[in-house]
Amino acid sequence: MIKITKVNAAILIIGNEILSGRTQDTNTSSIALWLNSIGVTVNEVRVIPDIEGTIIDTVNYLRKANDYVFTTGGIGPTHDDITAQSISRAFKREYEIHKEAFKILEAYYKVGEFNEGRQKMVWMPKNANLILNPTSGAPGFNVENVFCLPGVPSILKSMLGGLKDKILGGNPILSHTISLRTVESEIAKALTEVQDSNKDVEIGSYPFFQGGKLGVSIVIRSEDQFKIDKCSSEILEFVNQKKIEIVAR
Amino acid sequence: MIKITKVNAAILIIGNEILSGRTQDTNTSSIALWLNSIGVTVNEVRVIPDIEGTIIDTVNYLRKANDYVFTTGGIGPTHDDITAQSISRAFKREYEIHKEAFKILEAYYKVGEFNEGRQKMVWMPKNANLILNPTSGAPGFNVENVFCLPGVPSILKSMLGGLKDKILGGNPILSHTISLRTVESEIAKALTEVQDSNKDVEIGSYPFFQGGKLGVSIVIRSEDQFKIDKCSSEILEFVNQKKIEIVAR
Repeated sequence: MIKITKVNAAILIIGNEILSGRTQDTNTSSIALWLNSIGVTVNEVRVIPDIEGTIIDTVNYLRKANDYVFTTGGIGPTHDDITAQSISRAFKREYEIHKEAFKILEAYYKVGEFNEGRQKMVWMPKNANLILNPTSGAPGFNVENVFCLPGVPSILKSMLGGLKDKILGGNPILSHTISLRTVESEIAKALTEVQDSNKDVEIGSYPFFQGGKLGVSIVIRSEDQFKIDKCSSEILEFVNQKKIEIVAR
Repeated sequence: MIKITKVNAAILIIGNEILSGRTQDTNTSSIALWLNSIGVTVNEVRVIPDIEGTIIDTVNYLRKANDYVFTTGGIGPTHDDITAQSISRAFKREYEIHKEAFKILEAYYKVGEFNEGRQKMVWMPKNANLILNPTSGAPGFNVENVFCLPGVPSILKSMLGGLKDKILGGNPILSHTISLRTVESEIAKALTEVQDSNKDVEIGSYPFFQGGKLGVSIVIRSEDQFKIDKCSSEILEFVNQKKIEIVAR
Protein backbone atom coordinates (compact mmCIF):
# COMPACT_ATOMS: atom_id res chain seq x y z
CA MET A 1 0.00 0.00 0.00
CA ILE A 2 1.31 3.43 -0.92
CA LYS A 3 0.94 5.82 1.95
CA ILE A 4 0.24 9.51 1.50
CA THR A 5 3.03 11.15 3.47
CA LYS A 6 1.46 14.47 4.43
CA VAL A 7 -1.99 14.35 5.90
CA ASN A 8 -3.22 17.23 8.04
CA ALA A 9 -6.10 18.12 10.27
CA ALA A 10 -7.63 20.97 12.23
CA ILE A 11 -9.25 20.66 15.64
CA LEU A 12 -12.25 22.88 16.38
CA ILE A 13 -13.21 23.21 20.05
CA ILE A 14 -16.76 24.54 20.34
CA GLY A 15 -17.76 25.92 23.72
CA ASN A 16 -18.17 29.09 25.73
CA GLU A 17 -16.83 27.29 28.81
CA ILE A 18 -13.35 27.09 27.28
CA LEU A 19 -13.38 30.74 26.15
CA SER A 20 -14.46 31.92 29.60
CA GLY A 21 -11.58 30.00 31.18
CA ARG A 22 -13.97 28.04 33.39
CA THR A 23 -13.00 24.74 31.79
CA GLN A 24 -9.50 23.70 30.83
CA ASP A 25 -9.53 22.07 27.39
CA THR A 26 -7.83 18.67 27.41
CA ASN A 27 -9.39 17.31 24.21
CA THR A 28 -6.84 19.00 21.93
CA SER A 29 -4.04 16.99 23.45
CA SER A 30 -5.99 13.69 23.32
CA ILE A 31 -6.95 14.13 19.68
CA ALA A 32 -3.52 15.42 18.63
CA LEU A 33 -1.60 12.54 20.25
CA TRP A 34 -3.92 10.03 18.59
CA LEU A 35 -3.68 11.75 15.18
CA ASN A 36 0.12 11.82 15.36
CA SER A 37 0.14 8.10 16.05
CA ILE A 38 -1.74 7.47 12.80
CA GLY A 39 0.34 9.90 10.75
CA VAL A 40 -1.88 12.98 10.74
CA THR A 41 -0.34 16.37 11.58
CA VAL A 42 -2.47 18.94 13.36
CA ASN A 43 -2.11 22.24 11.48
CA GLU A 44 -4.20 24.39 13.75
CA VAL A 45 -6.66 24.45 16.61
CA ARG A 46 -9.45 26.95 17.05
CA VAL A 47 -11.72 27.54 20.01
CA ILE A 48 -14.98 29.31 19.20
CA PRO A 49 -18.20 30.16 21.06
CA ASP A 50 -21.61 28.46 20.80
CA ILE A 51 -22.76 30.82 18.03
CA GLU A 52 -24.28 29.21 14.93
CA GLY A 53 -22.89 31.66 12.36
CA THR A 54 -19.39 31.35 13.79
CA ILE A 55 -19.56 27.54 13.79
CA ILE A 56 -20.79 27.44 10.18
CA ASP A 57 -18.15 29.87 8.87
CA THR A 58 -15.31 28.24 10.77
CA VAL A 59 -16.23 24.69 9.77
CA ASN A 60 -16.59 25.72 6.13
CA TYR A 61 -13.18 27.37 6.17
CA LEU A 62 -11.37 24.57 8.02
CA ARG A 63 -12.83 21.68 6.02
CA LYS A 64 -11.53 23.20 2.80
CA ALA A 65 -8.10 24.05 4.24
CA ASN A 66 -7.44 20.65 5.85
CA ASP A 67 -7.73 16.95 5.04
CA TYR A 68 -9.74 16.37 8.22
CA VAL A 69 -11.57 18.45 10.80
CA PHE A 70 -12.41 17.21 14.30
CA THR A 71 -14.93 19.17 16.33
CA THR A 72 -15.58 18.72 20.04
CA GLY A 73 -18.56 19.85 22.07
CA GLY A 74 -22.13 20.91 21.51
CA ILE A 75 -23.75 17.57 20.69
CA GLY A 76 -25.57 17.00 23.99
CA PRO A 77 -29.26 17.45 24.86
CA THR A 78 -29.38 21.07 26.09
CA HIS A 79 -30.20 24.39 24.39
CA ASP A 80 -26.52 25.37 24.11
CA ASP A 81 -25.74 22.19 22.11
CA ILE A 82 -25.99 23.53 18.55
CA THR A 83 -23.17 21.75 16.74
CA ALA A 84 -25.34 19.23 14.83
CA GLN A 85 -27.72 21.85 13.47
CA SER A 86 -24.81 24.18 12.60
CA ILE A 87 -22.97 21.41 10.73
CA SER A 88 -26.19 20.64 8.82
CA ARG A 89 -26.32 24.25 7.67
CA ALA A 90 -22.60 24.34 6.87
CA PHE A 91 -23.11 21.39 4.50
CA LYS A 92 -26.57 22.59 3.37
CA ARG A 93 -28.08 19.28 4.47
CA GLU A 94 -31.40 18.68 6.20
CA TYR A 95 -31.24 18.54 10.02
CA GLU A 96 -33.31 15.45 10.80
CA ILE A 97 -33.74 12.37 12.96
CA HIS A 98 -31.03 9.81 12.23
CA LYS A 99 -32.84 6.47 12.24
CA GLU A 100 -29.88 4.34 13.25
CA ALA A 101 -28.95 6.73 16.09
CA PHE A 102 -32.58 6.64 17.24
CA LYS A 103 -32.51 2.84 17.39
CA ILE A 104 -29.21 2.85 19.29
CA LEU A 105 -30.49 5.21 21.98
CA GLU A 106 -33.92 3.54 22.15
CA ALA A 107 -32.09 0.30 22.98
CA TYR A 108 -29.58 2.01 25.29
CA TYR A 109 -32.11 3.64 27.62
CA LYS A 110 -34.66 1.89 29.79
CA VAL A 111 -38.31 2.12 28.75
CA GLY A 112 -39.58 5.63 29.51
CA GLU A 113 -36.09 7.13 29.84
CA PHE A 114 -35.65 8.05 26.17
CA ASN A 115 -37.20 11.43 26.78
CA GLU A 116 -37.43 14.62 24.68
CA GLY A 117 -34.02 15.89 25.83
CA ARG A 118 -32.29 12.65 24.86
CA GLN A 119 -34.14 12.49 21.56
CA LYS A 120 -32.49 15.79 20.60
CA MET A 121 -29.21 13.86 20.39
CA VAL A 122 -30.41 11.81 17.38
CA TRP A 123 -30.99 14.92 15.24
CA MET A 124 -28.12 15.14 12.76
CA PRO A 125 -27.26 16.26 9.24
CA LYS A 126 -28.99 14.04 6.64
CA ASN A 127 -26.93 10.96 5.72
CA ALA A 128 -24.35 11.54 8.45
CA ASN A 129 -22.24 8.53 9.40
CA LEU A 130 -22.34 7.62 13.06
CA ILE A 131 -19.33 7.54 15.37
CA LEU A 132 -20.16 4.99 18.03
CA ASN A 133 -19.95 5.87 21.72
CA PRO A 134 -19.06 2.91 23.94
CA THR A 135 -19.30 5.03 27.13
CA SER A 136 -22.65 6.79 27.18
CA GLY A 137 -24.60 5.68 24.12
CA ALA A 138 -25.17 8.91 22.19
CA PRO A 139 -23.13 8.69 18.98
CA GLY A 140 -21.07 11.40 17.33
CA PHE A 141 -21.26 11.78 13.57
CA ASN A 142 -19.24 12.40 10.48
CA VAL A 143 -20.07 14.31 7.30
CA GLU A 144 -17.46 14.19 4.51
CA ASN A 145 -14.15 15.10 6.19
CA VAL A 146 -15.68 16.57 9.35
CA PHE A 147 -15.91 14.42 12.51
CA CYS A 148 -18.06 15.65 15.38
CA LEU A 149 -17.21 14.42 18.86
CA PRO A 150 -18.58 15.27 22.31
CA GLY A 151 -16.90 17.67 24.71
CA VAL A 152 -16.69 15.40 27.76
CA PRO A 153 -13.04 14.23 27.70
CA SER A 154 -13.52 10.65 28.93
CA ILE A 155 -16.32 10.00 26.42
CA LEU A 156 -14.37 11.60 23.58
CA LYS A 157 -11.31 9.47 24.33
CA SER A 158 -13.37 6.29 24.25
CA MET A 159 -14.65 7.16 20.77
CA LEU A 160 -11.30 7.82 19.05
CA GLY A 161 -10.40 4.14 18.68
CA GLY A 162 -13.50 3.51 16.56
CA LEU A 163 -12.45 6.21 14.10
CA LYS A 164 -9.20 4.61 13.02
CA ASP A 165 -10.57 2.93 9.91
CA LYS A 166 -12.24 6.15 8.76
CA ILE A 167 -9.02 8.17 8.68
CA LEU A 168 -6.38 7.65 6.03
CA GLY A 169 -3.19 8.74 7.74
CA GLY A 170 0.34 9.08 6.46
CA ASN A 171 3.49 7.74 8.05
CA PRO A 172 3.29 7.99 11.83
CA ILE A 173 5.12 11.04 13.17
CA LEU A 174 7.92 9.75 15.38
CA SER A 175 9.56 11.69 18.16
CA HIS A 176 12.45 11.41 20.56
CA THR A 177 12.97 13.52 23.66
CA ILE A 178 16.28 14.29 25.36
CA SER A 179 15.93 15.99 28.74
CA LEU A 180 18.90 17.92 30.08
CA ARG A 181 19.87 19.60 33.33
CA THR A 182 20.61 22.97 31.77
CA VAL A 183 18.93 26.19 30.69
CA GLU A 184 17.97 27.04 27.11
CA SER A 185 20.49 29.84 26.68
CA GLU A 186 23.40 27.43 27.33
CA ILE A 187 22.46 25.22 24.40
CA ALA A 188 20.71 27.68 22.06
CA LYS A 189 23.65 28.22 19.71
CA ALA A 190 24.67 24.57 19.40
CA LEU A 191 21.05 23.52 18.94
CA THR A 192 20.57 26.07 16.16
CA GLU A 193 23.52 24.51 14.34
CA VAL A 194 21.96 21.05 14.59
CA GLN A 195 18.63 22.42 13.31
CA ASP A 196 20.39 24.23 10.44
CA SER A 197 22.09 21.04 9.27
CA ASN A 198 18.87 18.98 9.62
CA LYS A 199 16.28 21.26 8.05
CA ASP A 200 13.56 18.67 7.47
CA VAL A 201 13.50 17.56 11.11
CA GLU A 202 11.48 19.52 13.64
CA ILE A 203 13.52 20.30 16.76
CA GLY A 204 11.76 21.94 19.68
CA SER A 205 13.25 23.19 22.92
CA TYR A 206 11.07 23.30 26.04
CA PRO A 207 12.21 24.50 29.47
CA PHE A 208 10.80 22.65 32.47
CA PHE A 209 10.87 23.02 36.24
CA GLN A 210 10.61 19.76 38.15
CA GLY A 211 11.41 18.85 41.74
CA GLY A 212 12.88 22.29 42.32
CA LYS A 213 15.30 22.02 39.40
CA LEU A 214 15.38 23.66 35.98
CA GLY A 215 15.85 21.64 32.83
CA VAL A 216 15.26 21.63 29.09
CA SER A 217 13.57 18.97 26.99
CA ILE A 218 14.67 18.77 23.38
CA VAL A 219 12.03 17.14 21.21
CA ILE A 220 13.05 15.80 17.79
CA ARG A 221 10.18 14.98 15.40
CA SER A 222 10.17 13.38 11.96
CA GLU A 223 8.55 10.53 10.05
CA ASP A 224 12.03 9.08 9.56
CA GLN A 225 13.69 7.27 12.48
CA PHE A 226 17.09 7.51 10.78
CA LYS A 227 16.88 11.31 10.70
CA ILE A 228 15.84 11.41 14.34
CA ASP A 229 18.80 9.22 15.31
CA LYS A 230 21.21 11.43 13.34
CA CYS A 231 19.95 14.58 15.11
CA SER A 232 19.98 12.82 18.43
CA SER A 233 23.67 11.89 18.14
CA GLU A 234 24.61 15.39 17.02
CA ILE A 235 22.82 16.79 20.09
CA LEU A 236 24.44 14.27 22.43
CA GLU A 237 27.81 15.26 21.00
CA PHE A 238 27.55 18.88 22.10
CA VAL A 239 25.88 17.82 25.35
CA ASN A 240 28.93 15.70 26.19
CA GLN A 241 31.33 18.42 25.12
CA LYS A 242 29.58 20.91 27.38
CA LYS A 243 29.47 18.33 30.21
CA ILE A 244 25.71 18.80 30.61
CA GLU A 245 23.89 16.20 32.72
CA ILE A 246 21.36 14.08 30.82
CA VAL A 247 18.18 13.63 32.88
CA ALA A 248 16.39 11.31 30.47
CA ARG A 249 16.66 10.20 26.85
CA MET B 1 -16.07 57.16 34.21
CA ILE B 2 -18.01 55.81 31.26
CA LYS B 3 -17.10 52.21 30.61
CA ILE B 4 -17.13 50.63 27.18
CA THR B 5 -19.39 47.64 27.68
CA LYS B 6 -18.17 45.24 24.99
CA VAL B 7 -14.44 44.69 24.76
CA ASN B 8 -13.13 41.54 23.14
CA ALA B 9 -9.88 39.70 22.65
CA ALA B 10 -8.32 36.76 20.88
CA ILE B 11 -5.71 34.45 22.35
CA LEU B 12 -3.05 33.09 20.01
CA ILE B 13 -1.07 30.10 21.29
CA ILE B 14 2.13 29.70 19.26
CA GLY B 15 3.87 26.35 19.54
CA ASN B 16 4.35 22.99 17.87
CA GLU B 17 4.34 21.31 21.28
CA ILE B 18 0.64 22.09 21.74
CA LEU B 19 -0.29 20.94 18.22
CA SER B 20 1.59 17.65 18.67
CA GLY B 21 -0.29 16.98 21.90
CA ARG B 22 2.97 16.71 23.86
CA THR B 23 2.09 19.71 26.02
CA GLN B 24 -1.31 20.50 27.44
CA ASP B 25 -2.09 24.22 27.03
CA THR B 26 -3.10 25.85 30.30
CA ASN B 27 -2.40 29.46 29.32
CA THR B 28 -5.78 29.92 27.59
CA SER B 29 -7.60 29.36 30.84
CA SER B 30 -5.25 31.65 32.84
CA ILE B 31 -5.54 34.50 30.35
CA ALA B 32 -9.30 34.06 29.83
CA LEU B 33 -10.12 34.06 33.55
CA TRP B 34 -8.05 37.20 34.03
CA LEU B 35 -9.60 38.94 31.01
CA ASN B 36 -13.12 38.13 32.20
CA SER B 37 -12.32 39.67 35.57
CA ILE B 38 -11.43 42.97 33.88
CA GLY B 39 -14.42 42.91 31.51
CA VAL B 40 -12.84 41.54 28.34
CA THR B 41 -14.60 38.71 26.49
CA VAL B 42 -12.47 36.13 24.66
CA ASN B 43 -13.95 35.75 21.16
CA GLU B 44 -11.65 33.03 19.92
CA VAL B 45 -8.46 31.10 20.57
CA ARG B 46 -6.13 29.79 17.90
CA VAL B 47 -3.19 27.44 18.22
CA ILE B 48 -0.66 27.63 15.38
CA PRO B 49 2.77 26.18 14.64
CA ASP B 50 6.18 27.90 14.85
CA ILE B 51 6.01 29.00 11.20
CA GLU B 52 6.76 32.64 10.47
CA GLY B 53 4.26 33.13 7.62
CA THR B 54 1.47 31.57 9.67
CA ILE B 55 2.26 33.75 12.69
CA ILE B 56 2.32 36.93 10.57
CA ASP B 57 -0.95 36.19 8.76
CA THR B 58 -2.77 35.10 11.90
CA VAL B 59 -1.63 38.07 13.99
CA ASN B 60 -2.57 40.49 11.22
CA TYR B 61 -6.03 38.95 10.96
CA LEU B 62 -6.70 38.74 14.69
CA ARG B 63 -5.47 42.24 15.57
CA LYS B 64 -7.93 43.78 13.13
CA ALA B 65 -10.83 41.56 14.20
CA ASN B 66 -10.40 42.07 17.97
CA ASP B 67 -9.78 44.86 20.45
CA TYR B 68 -6.83 42.96 21.91
CA VAL B 69 -4.65 39.98 20.99
CA PHE B 70 -2.60 38.00 23.49
CA THR B 71 0.07 35.67 22.16
CA THR B 72 1.90 33.04 24.19
CA GLY B 73 5.13 31.24 23.38
CA GLY B 74 8.12 31.70 21.12
CA ILE B 75 9.95 34.51 22.94
CA GLY B 76 12.76 32.44 24.49
CA PRO B 77 16.42 32.10 23.44
CA THR B 78 16.31 29.07 21.09
CA HIS B 79 16.01 28.71 17.30
CA ASP B 80 12.31 27.79 17.50
CA ASP B 81 11.48 31.07 19.29
CA ILE B 82 10.42 33.23 16.36
CA THR B 83 7.50 35.24 17.75
CA ALA B 84 9.38 38.57 18.16
CA GLN B 85 10.74 38.56 14.62
CA SER B 86 7.37 37.47 13.20
CA ILE B 87 5.53 40.26 15.06
CA SER B 88 8.10 42.75 13.74
CA ARG B 89 7.28 41.66 10.19
CA ALA B 90 3.52 41.65 10.88
CA PHE B 91 3.76 45.31 11.89
CA LYS B 92 6.47 46.12 9.31
CA ARG B 93 8.76 47.34 12.07
CA GLU B 94 12.51 46.82 12.42
CA TYR B 95 13.56 43.79 14.49
CA GLU B 96 16.23 45.24 16.76
CA ILE B 97 17.81 45.32 20.20
CA HIS B 98 15.47 46.92 22.73
CA LYS B 99 17.74 49.09 24.88
CA GLU B 100 15.60 49.00 28.01
CA ALA B 101 15.22 45.22 27.79
CA PHE B 102 18.99 44.92 27.33
CA LYS B 103 19.59 46.93 30.51
CA ILE B 104 17.09 44.85 32.46
CA LEU B 105 18.72 41.55 31.50
CA GLU B 106 22.26 42.93 31.90
CA ALA B 107 21.34 43.79 35.50
CA TYR B 108 19.41 40.53 36.03
CA TYR B 109 22.23 38.14 35.12
CA LYS B 110 25.59 37.83 36.86
CA VAL B 111 28.66 39.14 35.01
CA GLY B 112 29.49 36.76 32.17
CA GLU B 113 26.10 35.06 32.19
CA PHE B 114 24.38 37.43 29.76
CA ASN B 115 25.46 35.28 26.82
CA GLU B 116 24.50 35.21 23.15
CA GLY B 117 21.44 33.00 23.75
CA ARG B 118 20.06 35.32 26.39
CA GLN B 119 20.81 38.39 24.30
CA LYS B 120 18.43 37.03 21.66
CA MET B 121 15.60 37.75 24.11
CA VAL B 122 16.14 41.53 23.88
CA TRP B 123 15.50 41.61 20.11
CA MET B 124 12.02 42.98 19.57
CA PRO B 125 9.96 45.06 17.16
CA LYS B 126 11.16 48.71 17.11
CA ASN B 127 9.46 50.86 19.78
CA ALA B 128 7.76 47.89 21.46
CA ASN B 129 6.56 48.49 25.02
CA LEU B 130 7.93 46.06 27.58
CA ILE B 131 5.84 43.74 29.71
CA LEU B 132 7.84 43.18 32.88
CA ASN B 133 8.64 39.67 34.07
CA PRO B 134 8.96 39.39 37.85
CA THR B 135 9.83 35.66 37.67
CA SER B 136 12.70 35.19 35.25
CA GLY B 137 13.77 38.62 34.03
CA ALA B 138 13.18 38.42 30.26
CA PRO B 139 10.32 40.81 29.45
CA GLY B 140 7.44 40.27 27.06
CA PHE B 141 6.40 43.11 24.80
CA ASN B 142 3.44 44.93 23.37
CA VAL B 143 2.94 46.56 19.96
CA GLU B 144 -0.34 48.46 19.45
CA ASN B 145 -3.09 46.05 20.57
CA VAL B 146 -0.94 42.90 20.52
CA PHE B 147 0.60 41.61 23.77
CA CYS B 148 3.29 38.93 23.57
CA LEU B 149 3.78 36.69 26.58
CA PRO B 150 5.98 33.64 27.20
CA GLY B 151 4.73 30.06 26.98
CA VAL B 152 5.85 28.85 30.42
CA PRO B 153 2.60 28.97 32.45
CA SER B 154 4.02 30.06 35.81
CA ILE B 155 5.98 32.92 34.21
CA LEU B 156 3.02 34.00 32.08
CA LYS B 157 0.72 34.11 35.12
CA SER B 158 3.17 36.30 37.02
CA MET B 159 3.16 38.84 34.17
CA LEU B 160 -0.60 39.31 33.81
CA GLY B 161 -0.95 41.52 36.88
CA GLY B 162 1.41 44.10 35.36
CA LEU B 163 -0.77 44.39 32.27
CA LYS B 164 -3.89 45.62 34.00
CA ASP B 165 -3.30 49.33 33.37
CA LYS B 166 -2.61 48.72 29.69
CA ILE B 167 -5.99 47.10 28.99
CA LEU B 168 -9.19 49.10 28.90
CA GLY B 169 -11.83 46.58 29.86
CA GLY B 170 -15.60 46.82 30.01
CA ASN B 171 -17.85 45.79 32.86
CA PRO B 172 -16.54 42.61 34.50
CA ILE B 173 -18.35 39.51 33.28
CA LEU B 174 -20.09 38.00 36.27
CA SER B 175 -21.09 34.38 36.60
CA HIS B 176 -23.03 32.13 38.92
CA THR B 177 -22.90 28.33 38.94
CA ILE B 178 -25.61 25.99 40.17
CA SER B 179 -24.51 22.35 40.40
CA LEU B 180 -27.20 19.70 40.42
CA ARG B 181 -27.39 15.96 41.01
CA THR B 182 -29.11 15.18 37.70
CA VAL B 183 -28.38 14.52 34.04
CA GLU B 184 -28.74 17.09 31.26
CA SER B 185 -31.68 15.43 29.55
CA GLU B 186 -33.81 15.80 32.72
CA ILE B 187 -33.48 19.57 32.74
CA ALA B 188 -32.96 20.34 29.04
CA LYS B 189 -36.54 21.46 28.32
CA ALA B 190 -36.96 23.61 31.44
CA LEU B 191 -33.54 25.18 30.93
CA THR B 192 -34.38 26.05 27.33
CA GLU B 193 -37.46 27.92 28.58
CA VAL B 194 -35.34 29.93 31.03
CA GLN B 195 -32.84 30.75 28.26
CA ASP B 196 -35.66 31.76 25.89
CA SER B 197 -37.08 34.21 28.39
CA ASN B 198 -33.62 35.63 29.25
CA LYS B 199 -32.04 36.01 25.83
CA ASP B 200 -29.24 38.41 26.78
CA VAL B 201 -27.90 36.12 29.51
CA GLU B 202 -25.54 33.28 28.60
CA ILE B 203 -26.64 29.99 30.16
CA GLY B 204 -24.34 26.99 29.76
CA SER B 205 -24.97 23.41 30.83
CA TYR B 206 -21.98 21.20 31.64
CA PRO B 207 -22.19 17.58 32.74
CA PHE B 208 -19.63 16.43 35.31
CA PHE B 209 -18.60 13.17 36.95
CA GLN B 210 -17.24 13.51 40.46
CA GLY B 211 -16.73 10.99 43.22
CA GLY B 212 -18.49 8.34 41.16
CA LYS B 213 -21.61 10.46 40.68
CA LEU B 214 -23.01 12.28 37.66
CA GLY B 215 -24.09 15.88 37.85
CA VAL B 216 -24.70 18.99 35.81
CA SER B 217 -23.33 22.47 36.38
CA ILE B 218 -25.43 25.31 35.06
CA VAL B 219 -23.36 28.44 34.49
CA ILE B 220 -25.15 31.78 34.15
CA ARG B 221 -23.05 34.66 32.76
CA SER B 222 -23.84 38.33 32.31
CA GLU B 223 -22.44 41.76 33.16
CA ASP B 224 -25.62 42.41 35.14
CA GLN B 225 -25.97 40.79 38.57
CA PHE B 226 -29.72 41.47 38.56
CA LYS B 227 -30.17 39.42 35.38
CA ILE B 228 -28.10 36.58 36.81
CA ASP B 229 -30.21 36.56 39.98
CA LYS B 230 -33.43 36.51 37.93
CA CYS B 231 -32.24 33.50 35.90
CA SER B 232 -30.96 31.80 38.99
CA SER B 233 -34.35 31.96 40.72
CA GLU B 234 -36.16 30.71 37.61
CA ILE B 235 -33.77 27.76 37.50
CA LEU B 236 -34.14 27.03 41.21
CA GLU B 237 -37.92 27.08 40.72
CA PHE B 238 -37.91 24.17 38.25
CA VAL B 239 -35.19 22.41 40.26
CA ASN B 240 -37.43 22.43 43.32
CA GLN B 241 -40.48 21.36 41.31
CA LYS B 242 -38.55 18.42 39.91
CA LYS B 243 -37.14 17.61 43.38
CA ILE B 244 -33.57 17.64 42.04
CA GLU B 245 -30.80 17.70 44.66
CA ILE B 246 -28.67 20.87 44.65
CA VAL B 247 -24.98 19.98 45.07
CA ALA B 248 -23.65 23.53 45.19
CA ARG B 249 -24.82 27.04 44.37
